[in-house]
Amino acid sequence: MRGISIVGIGQTPVGEHWNLSARHLAHSALSAAMQDANIDRADALFVGNMLSGSLLEQEHLATLIADFSGLRGVEAAKVEAACASGAAALRVGCMAVASGMHDVVIVAGVEKMTDTPSGSTTAGLATAADAEYEAAHGITFVGLNALLMQRYLYEYNVPLDAFAGFSINAHRNGANNPNAMFQRAIGLKEYVNAPMISTPINMMDSSPVCDGAAALVLVPTERASEFTVGQHRGAVQILASASATDTLAVHDRKDPLFLEAAYLSSQKAYLQGGITPDEIDFFELHDAFTIMSALSLEATGFARRGEGWRMASDVEIGIGGRLPISTMGGLKSRGHPVGATGVYQIVETVLQLTGQAGKNQVKNPRIGMAQNIGGSGATIVTHILGV
Amino acid sequence: MRGISIVGIGQTPVGEHWNLSARHLAHSALSAAMQDANIDRADALFVGNMLSGSLLEQEHLATLIADFSGLRGVEAAKVEAACASGAAALRVGCMAVASGMHDVVIVAGVEKMTDTPSGSTTAGLATAADAEYEAAHGITFVGLNALLMQRYLYEYNVPLDAFAGFSINAHRNGANNPNAMFQRAIGLKEYVNAPMISTPINMMDSSPVCDGAAALVLVPTERASEFTVGQHRGAVQILASASATDTLAVHDRKDPLFLEAAYLSSQKAYLQGGITPDEIDFFELHDAFTIMSALSLEATGFARRGEGWRMASDVEIGIGGRLPISTMGGLKSRGHPVGATGVYQIVETVLQLTGQAGKNQVKNPRIGMAQNIGGSGATIVTHILGV
Repeated sequence: MRGISIVGIGQTPVGEHWNLSARHLAHSALSAAMQDANIDRADALFVGNMLSGSLLEQEHLATLIADFSGLRGVEAAKVEAACASGAAALRVGCMAVASGMHDVVIVAGVEKMTDTPSGSTTAGLATAADAEYEAAHGITFVGLNALLMQRYLYEYNVPLDAFAGFSINAHRNGANNPNAMFQRAIGLKEYVNAPMISTPINMMDSSPVCDGAAALVLVPTERASEFTVGQHRGAVQILASASATDTLAVHDRKDPLFLEAAYLSSQKAYLQGGITPDEIDFFELHDAFTIMSALSLEATGFARRGEGWRMASDVEIGIGGRLPISTMGGLKSRGHPVGATGVYQIVETVLQLTGQAGKNQVKNPRIGMAQNIGGSGATIVTHILGV
Repeated sequence: MRGISIVGIGQTPVGEHWNLSARHLAHSALSAAMQDANIDRADALFVGNMLSGSLLEQEHLATLIADFSGLRGVEAAKVEAACASGAAALRVGCMAVASGMHDVVIVAGVEKMTDTPSGSTTAGLATAADAEYEAAHGITFVGLNALLMQRYLYEYNVPLDAFAGFSINAHRNGANNPNAMFQRAIGLKEYVNAPMISTPINMMDSSPVCDGAAALVLVPTERASEFTVGQHRGAVQILASASATDTLAVHDRKDPLFLEAAYLSSQKAYLQGGITPDEIDFFELHDAFTIMSALSLEATGFARRGEGWRMASDVEIGIGGRLPISTMGGLKSRGHPVGATGVYQIVETVLQLTGQAGKNQVKNPRIGMAQNIGGSGATIVTHILGV
C-alpha cells in the first residue's frame, strides 16, 4: 500500500453565502487547493456532501463540480455518510491513491444549507437519523442530541454548565480564524444566558447551519516532493485513516453514552499509525454539540467514562493546554457545513502541522488527529496526520 | 495493486416492492451475496444509491444497511453518481481491496422509486441533470434523452423505428430472467404502437421506474480460492475498472451525440485489461433509453458514428449474435432501479461468465463488459470481467 500525503489545501469562509451555489463554493475551495499544490490537473475528484439532493435538487454533484472546476473528464463521485461525508470522501481519496489507481486526487467537501425553504434544512438534517424509527416520530437531530446530553447529565450527575468550556474554547479560537462563521469570543455569561433550543442544548452548545467548502490535494508519499516547490511547504502525511459504524438509531445501542464507532475507528487508527493517544499533539474533534465533544474524548481514549466534561477548561483543551481541541473554532465557531466539515478539519490539521495557524498555532505539533462524526455517532471516521 | 475477484452475487427481483423499504431490499440482496460467497462477515460496505435522500428522507443509507444486515461496526459509505451510482460504488470497493485496506468488501446497489408522492420520482431523476441550467427550465430526464434521440434521427437520417431492435432484444431476454420486471417478449408491432412518452421516445424505448437491489462480494484475487468452496463456482476477476466524466448539461458538449465519457472510460478499461473490443464476448450496456444503446455502442468502439442503430438486430446483439447485449433483459426489461443498476449489470455479467444464465446463456464467454451511465452521459463507468 502506498503512503498518502497532502500537498495542497483550500477553504472558503464559512457563513451564509446567499450569492453562491454549491458549485461556486466547491470551485473556490478546489482551485485554492490546486493553487496551493501548484497543479492544474488531477486524476480524480471525490466530493463529500450530504444534502445536495434534498436541499438543492442537485445530485450527480461531484461530476458537476469536476466540470465546473476545469477537471472535465476525470473520475468523480460523491460520497455520503451524513455529517461524516467529508471524512468518508477522504477515505475514498486515500484508497484511490494507496491502491495506485490514481496519483493526484482531489477531495472536496461542500454543503449549502442556507437560503433554502423554511424547515427544509432541519428536515434534511433529520435524514441522518433512522427515517422509519426515529425521524418518522418527529424527532429532530438537535432533539436526539438533547436526549443524549440529558442522559449524560443524569447518569453522571453533572452540572448544567459542565459543557460551557467547550463552547468558550471554540469561540476563543474561532475569533482568530478569518474563515470562521463566528469570529468572536464568548464567556460563561453568554453561555448560561443563551436561549434554549432543545433542552438541555442551548444556542451555545450547538453548531450553526451554514454554507462552506474545503478541499485537499492528495498524492502518493513517494511523489510528494514533486509537489512541494517554490513558496510551498513540505507535505503532510496521512499516518492513519479508519472508519467504523454503529446503529443509526440511538435506541438500538446498548449504551447510548458510549460512542462505539469512535472507539473502533480511533483504535484502528492508533494501530495503523503505531501511535498512542498521548502522542497526539492536538485533536480536531466533532463538536456539533458540546455533548459530542465529551463523548468523543471519552471513546477516543483521552478521558475516562463520564469525565470527558472535566476536560472543558483552558488548561486541558486551550491552545497551550494538554490536548488542544477545535483549534480553529471547531464546528461550533468555525461552523458546520455538514458534508464539508470533515474536510475543514483536515485543512485545519494541516495548517497546524505546517505552522500556518496564526494566533491559534499549537507549539511545534508533530501529530494531529481529526475525527468526523455522522448522525448521532453512527459513522465515525478518524484520521491521524503527521509531519 | 492487488487483483480483485468477485466471489459472491445476490439480487432481488426488480419490480414494485410496495411492502419493502430500501433497507429490506438491500438486506435481501446482501445476504444472498454473502450466502453465495459462504461468508458471515465483511470488512466494509459501499452502497450505490441515488435517491434515498429526496425520495425516502433517508441519507446515511450505507451505515443503516450495514447495521440492518448484521454488519454493525464495519466501514460503510454511500456512493452517488446519479444512475451510475452502482458502478461508482463498485469502483470504491475495488479501490478498498486493491489498496490492501480491506480484504472482504461488499458492494450493494439499491433504489426504491415506487410508492412515492406523485411526481417526486420524476423530479428526483431530474436531479441527475444540471439543476440550475437544465432542470430549472422544467426539462425532465426523459425529455433530455428525447432531445438526443431526435437529434440522432435528424443528423443521421434514420427511420423512427431504427431503435426497435434494442427494445425487442431486451424484452426477449428479460422473458427468461426470473428477476426481470417485464418477463414477456414484444414484437415490432408492440413497439410501433407503444404510447409516446416524450417524442420521439415511446414506452418501449424507455426503461421503467422500479425498486430493486443487487450485491457483490469482492476479495483480493490472491485470496479468491479461499472463498470458492463446496457448491460454489470459481471466482470471476475484475480485469479492468475505469470511470470518466463529461459536462452535466448536454448543451455544454461540443457534440451531444458522442458520449465522450464512454469513450474515455472504455479506452482506459481496454488499456488496463490489455483487451480490444473484439475480445469482448458480451456487453451489458446502459439501455435506459434505446438511444443510449446506440450512443454507447458507438463511443465504446463497437460501431461507427451514426451506425450504432444498425446493430439493433438479432444477428448482432442477440444471445447468439456477434455481440450479445442486455442479456438478462437490460435496463429496459429487467428494470432500472437507478442506483442499483450498475450492480445488477455486474451480477448478470458474473452469471454469464460462470454459466448460470439459463436460457440466456451466451456460449462459453471468457470476457464480459458492463457499462453504467449517469445522467445523459456525464458519468460513465466501465468494467471488464473475465474467467
